[in-house]
Order: sequence, then structure tokens, then C-alpha cells
Amino acid sequence: MPSNIIPSNIPDIVIGRLPIYLRALNRLAQEGHEVTSSHELGERLGISSAQIRKDLSHFGGFGKQGTGYQIAYLKEQLEQVLKVNREWLVALVGAGDLGSALAHYKGFADRGFRIACVFDSSPHKIGKELVNFVIQSMEEMPKVIAESGIKIAMVAVPAEVAQLVADQLIEAGIRGILNYAPINLNVPDYVRVQYIDPVVHMQRMTYYLS
Amino acid sequence: MPSNIIPSNIPDIVIGRLPIYLRALNRLAQEGHEVTSSHELGERLGISSAQIRKDLSHFGGFGKQGTGYQIAYLKEQLEQVLKVNREWLVALVGAGDLGSALAHYKGFADRGFRIACVFDSSPHKIGKELVNFVIQSMEEMPKVIAESGIKIAMVAVPAEVAQLVADQLIEAGIRGILNYAPINLNVPDYVRVQYIDPVVHMQRMTYYLS
Repeated sequence: MPSNIIPSNIPDIVIGRLPIYLRALNRLAQEGHEVTSSHELGERLGISSAQIRKDLSHFGGFGKQGTGYQIAYLKEQLEQVLKVNREWLVALVGAGDLGSALAHYKGFADRGFRIACVFDSSPHKIGKELVNFVIQSMEEMPKVIAESGIKIAMVAVPAEVAQLVADQLIEAGIRGILNYAPINLNVPDYVRVQYIDPVVHMQRMTYYLS
Repeated sequence: MPSNIIPSNIPDIVIGRLPIYLRALNRLAQEGHEVTSSHELGERLGISSAQIRKDLSHFGGFGKQGTGYQIAYLKEQLEQVLKVNREWLVALVGAGDLGSALAHYKGFADRGFRIACVFDSSPHKIGKELVNFVIQSMEEMPKVIAESGIKIAMVAVPAEVAQLVADQLIEAGIRGILNYAPINLNVPDYVRVQYIDPVVHMQRMTYYLS
């Protein structure tokens, strides 16, 4: 694949697996590996090696038969496909327990993301410092986001206000929402939403437990 | 479907959607609705009504053509299928920012889960109170979990120690792990793992952003 062309018609389910591959490659690199194989990746991830080869073939294939993948190269290519070979600024809405944990989290920086501003509706929090940020009011949110050109927001507010917050974010220019509120959001087609709800994940496991 | 029989051969992808349906039904009930339809649910969830009807038909179908679903009944049935018509005790490993936020989270109780114990390796944290818990040491973990019969754990520890923690949890009897550490876990077939990694979710969105 020419390194400046990213295919635009990859199935969403394949795109969904690429961050998992990238995370495993980062791990392998940290452990000192330079080369890996679809077999080794598959073992680590519980995904068949055939699936991995097929997924990567959407991008023209990154490895040669029998010699495996150069980790640094594959990592770079996946970062390019996922557009995380740059830093995305992220708006954080909600400075409660979860928002605060996210603001403190150190795992964003080297994977393409940086929280750039934090908003909350509580008069007790607005103006206070959280990590490196001064918590701003919800009234300031649309202007700050529109002016900064931020495209991604993490929503860590109560379910009752999450849709309203999402509407305001989209109006201000947000196009990707990571929603921690336990509610489905209605958004236009041009906005992507990803959901994180620990209960949904746990309810998905209990079916299998006796 | 007879209410005491839960089919055991439902595709995992269907099981994965049931908690989403259940969450939407809870929301509809809170809003005062008593009846819903696959069309209404589909609109809320961005899932086709045909898909919803098909998913629910695995359980014999809960609605009558044209009259929609009784929300309270469907909710009860889904809770039974997912086995969350009971309370699951959960062990929390890691009392850092994220673990602390999880311990404070009030959204578990009415959806089938209750954190019952918290563990951390830091001498500065062991013995301290966190919400209603006294943080216990990692050395105590295997015994506490084995004796309590707890089957589910949330892992909120650094990536470097997550595999070791998972191994210990499984040895102690844990069969479902909600893993917040940004690393894939190797576990036996009889253990379910669900992953929460905000970066993976955001990297899945950036592909679509310009």
C-alpha cells in the first residue's frame, strides 16, 4: 500500500479489530520483539491467524509469507490507517469520579489522544483545578470546543443529561463521542458514538456463568 | 418460553445485544412507558427492528404481532436470560483513580451487581477505607475470593501486572473478568473476559474523522 493512501471502504468490524492489533504490537515492541506473525498475534489475542491475515490484507498486506511482520512497520501503518499517527485533542465533559479518573489517566498520550479541556455543570467544581485543567462551565463549552476545533469528546455525565450534552457537543463541532453514560444517544449519521458501560459488559458474561 | 428454561445455544453476538435492549427497556420504563415495539427500540438503539425481532425470537419471542412488547415482562425475561435477576458480587482489584471511581459508582446496584471487596498492592492503600470497603492486600485476595465464592472481578491495575492478577483470580475461582488494563489477557476457555479500553474505542472512531 502506498503510504499516503488509506482505503475508505474497510468493513467497520475490521476497523474495530485494528486498535486491538495495534495495542498488541505496542506490547510486543515494549517486550523487545521486532518481528511477529499472524500466528503469534492470534495466540495473544484469541483471534485466528487467518482472520488477522484477512483483516490486514484489506490494506494490501503488511507481511511477506513466511517472514512475518516487522512490528515497527506494521505499527506505523496501522497508526496511519486509524489516523492516530497524530495527536487528537479531546474534550472531557463531567468532572465527577469517573471524569476525574479519566483526567488523571496516563494511557492516552502515547496512543494518539490528549484531554484538552474539562467541563462540568456544578458550581462547586467550575473554576477548580483538575490535573492541569481548570474546570469550565457548560455554558462555556460550545464556544471553547468550536474555537479549538476539537472533534472528539468523552461524556462522563449522568444518563439524564447525556443526550442534551451530546446535542450541544455535536452542535459545537464534535464528531466522535465516547459515551460513558448508561444510555443510548441519538446522533446524526455523521457522528460516531462508542459506548463504555461496565454493566453491559458484565451482563454479557453472566449468561455464561453458573 | 417457559420461564424456568434458558436456552444455552444463543449466538454470542445476540447475547452481546441483550444488555443493550435491557438498558433501553429500563430507560423506557423510567420514562413511564408500559409497552414498546421492535420499531421503537430500533429507533432508540440504531438497530433494525427486524434484527431485534430476530434476536428476541431465539427465546421464543416475547411479543405478539401488532401489539408490541410489554416492557415489564420483556425486562424480566431478559434479566432471567442474562441471569441478572439476582445480585452478583464483584471483586475489584486496583484502588487507583479508576478503581476508586468504580467503587463510588452507583449504577451497579439496580442492574445486578455489587462490589463486595477491594484489593490493592500499595502499602499506602491497604487498610484504608474506600466507600464502604477496607482495602485488602493482594496476598489476602485468593483466600477472600475463594471463600466468598465470588465469580466476577473488575481488574483496574497497570498493564504490567494484569496477567498475573488474572491468573491469581482464576486460580481463586473467578470465571468472568472485566479488564480495564490495556492488555489482552490469556485465560482458559472456561473464563470469560470483557475489555474496557477507552483508547481502543477512540481509535475506532478516528478512522472515520477527517
